[in-house]
Amino acid sequence: MTVFYPNGQPYKKENTTFEKKTGSEIVYGHRGMTLEEDLNVTNRYYIETDRAVIYKKPTPIQIVHVDYPKRSAAKITEAYFRKASTTDYNGIYRGKYIDFEAKETTHENYIPLKNFHAHQVEHMKRIKRHGGIGFIIVKFSQSSDTYLLESDFLASFWDASLSGGRKSIPKRFFHEHGHLIPQSYLPRIDYLRIVNQVFF
Amino acid sequence: MTVFYPNGQPYKKENTTFEKKTGSEIVYGHRGMTLEEDLNVTNRYYIETDRAVIYKKPTPIQIVHVDYPKRSAAKITEAYFRKASTTDYNGIYRGKYIDFEAKETTHENYIPLKNFHAHQVEHMKRIKRHGGIGFIIVKFSQSSDTYLLESDFLASFWDASLSGGRKSIPKRFFHEHGHLIPQSYLPRIDYLRIVNQVFF
Repeated sequence: MTVFYPNGQPYKKENTTFEKKTGSEIVYGHRGMTLEEDLNVTNRYYIETDRAVIYKKPTPIQIVHVDYPKRSAAKITEAYFRKASTTDYNGIYRGKYIDFEAKETTHENYIPLKNFHAHQVEHMKRIKRHGGIGFIIVKFSQSSDTYLLESDFLASFWDASLSGGRKSIPKRFFHEHGHLIPQSYLPRIDYLRIVNQVFF
Repeated sequence: MTVFYPNGQPYKKENTTFEKKTGSEIVYGHRGMTLEEDLNVTNRYYIETDRAVIYKKPTPIQIVHVDYPKRSAAKITEAYFRKASTTDYNGIYRGKYIDFEAKETTHENYIPLKNFHAHQVEHMKRIKRHGGIGFIIVKFSQSSDTYLLESDFLASFWDASLSGGRKSIPKRFFHEHGHLIPQSYLPRIDYLRIVNQVFF
């Protein structure tokens, strides 16, 4: 079956694997599900089962030029990626504001801090101050181990790095202070089970 | 002073007034500040004064083609607007999850329901169910009167319209059941003052 875009052009399968690359790490969409895909499926499951309302925010784009062709959809012909000033995911769970960033790393034993931005760390500090729940989810691709770590820890590493401290968080820190997230078929990455233990 | 995009091209002032049009109403960016601009300034003020952390979500875009030119930023050369499945604004205030949609209408005495989507109304019902604060902000451009209305009322009008009820919300309903938002220089649209009265 041929699927069409709203503008009448045929849907090209390869387009769906497009991913914005952050930092210098390349995410190989075809080598299995990415963390982002897994989280999207998980969040959809949470919504469908009415457990939580959490979404990934759209990628921020600077639009420069748009064509408005007759009888078809507006087409953006020039645009650029912008850096996000907040985290990628937020929503509500058990009456609480939830906010997190998710990152995948190909390094076996650490994740470089350059995977995050100063604005995001600042944002997470604000969320904490205002009574929200903030954390990061980090997947070590080689092992598929995926951890939840409270945003306070990221902020500590971040601040220390600014005064000469190490520029990455070691995996053993996640092992000791974070929480390994159970993975299954559905929900794929059941991070709310960890949120229940850690924040409630 | 000439300002440049990350890709080295000069910044064109007219691009900043680009706005996605929803429904059949046209928002004239040059006739004064739009509601969206006013809310962005207001939200920035709330963040800077540490009163709340509320952001507009980026416009969802379906990216079809990206060029990666040497020595300059990735350029999106084909993309389309997608319909949002949630509301445009969310965040945290006084420990509570806040969620709202903002619309401007050129009609003097009503706002057509087609300014909203079924998914958004469904989303607002979910937010309410999970203990969040949900509302709409509607600006009547002719008078500049801007109201906050609890999302429950939008849901009632929406559901009634599906079984033959009217396809718009009259301005007098906003006057009777909503709350006129005070406007000033800063914050421009002080909707949190109303949120304090209505939800706390």
